[in-house]
Amino acid sequence: MGNHELFMQQALEQARKGLSEGGIPIGSVLVLDGEVVGRGHNQRVQRGSAIRHAEMDCLEEAGRLSAVDYKRSIIYSTLSPCDMCSGAILLYGIPHVVVGENQTFQGPEDYVRSRGVQVEILNNEECIRLMTEFIREKPQLWHEDIGE
Amino acid sequence: MGNHELFMQQALEQARKGLSEGGIPIGSVLVLDGEVVGRGHNQRVQRGSAIRHAEMDCLEEAGRLSAVDYKRSIIYSTLSPCDMCSGAILLYGIPHVVVGENQTFQGPEDYVRSRGVQVEILNNEECIRLMTEFIREKPQLWHEDIGE
Repeated sequence: MGNHELFMQQALEQARKGLSEGGIPIGSVLVLDGEVVGRGHNQRVQRGSAIRHAEMDCLEEAGRLSAVDYKRSIIYSTLSPCDMCSGAILLYGIPHVVVGENQTFQGPEDYVRSRGVQVEILNNEECIRLMTEFIREKPQLWHEDIGE
Repeated sequence: MGNHELFMQQALEQARKGLSEGGIPIGSVLVLDGEVVGRGHNQRVQRGSAIRHAEMDCLEEAGRLSAVDYKRSIIYSTLSPCDMCSGAILLYGIPHVVVGENQTFQGPEDYVRSRGVQVEILNNEECIRLMTEFIREKPQLWHEDIGE
């Protein structure tokens, strides 16, 4: 298993944790110099949050980092980052995003790439399965999360 | 004073509140059917937050709204929304952004407009003064907030 898959497993752990809390199963980790410095999962249900998508929760948990740190980090997300999370990645100049899957939802990947960010899609089967089942079971909650 | 200036005064109140707490003086309000449903200000210092820019704090305080509500709301910010905050506006389909000023910082206004959002710039002198003084006094904190 390569590094990307190993870190994606940690993002998946976060997604499963969210699901077990009754939440939306999306997880994320931020990696700096090969070490996880932030972990998070979607907190819409758990905290009644409109802004704590997985990537946002992960960045918040990582705390206040310096620009030089963000600029050599990699963010992993089990799902293609939405407009908000993509915007946070652009704000902080995170140069590399590894995405579990973009089959059940696709954020503005081309725009993010056009701003110089490397976006890699793993199409991890477990990521796809988690979201497919969740969207089937709780479509309303899912639509709320993506503003639909 | 028109409606936009009146709501901008409430965003400015939030910005001043942030400044009095030792924080970054940027404020925001979310307005639905002529009523303020969310207020917020930048929380980098106060909460050690990497994600609670004024607009994000405002959206979080407004709570979980339905898509139809977001789609008829107006968001006010004392400063031109950065990539992250612009992304949140796009995620939720907020159709109208009123910006206090874009002289001290300018977010991706053209991109936001290209996605169908109306972006109005008031160039309010008090907004410009607050940020100009703040950036002069605490340039490092300001640069951290915009990922520089």
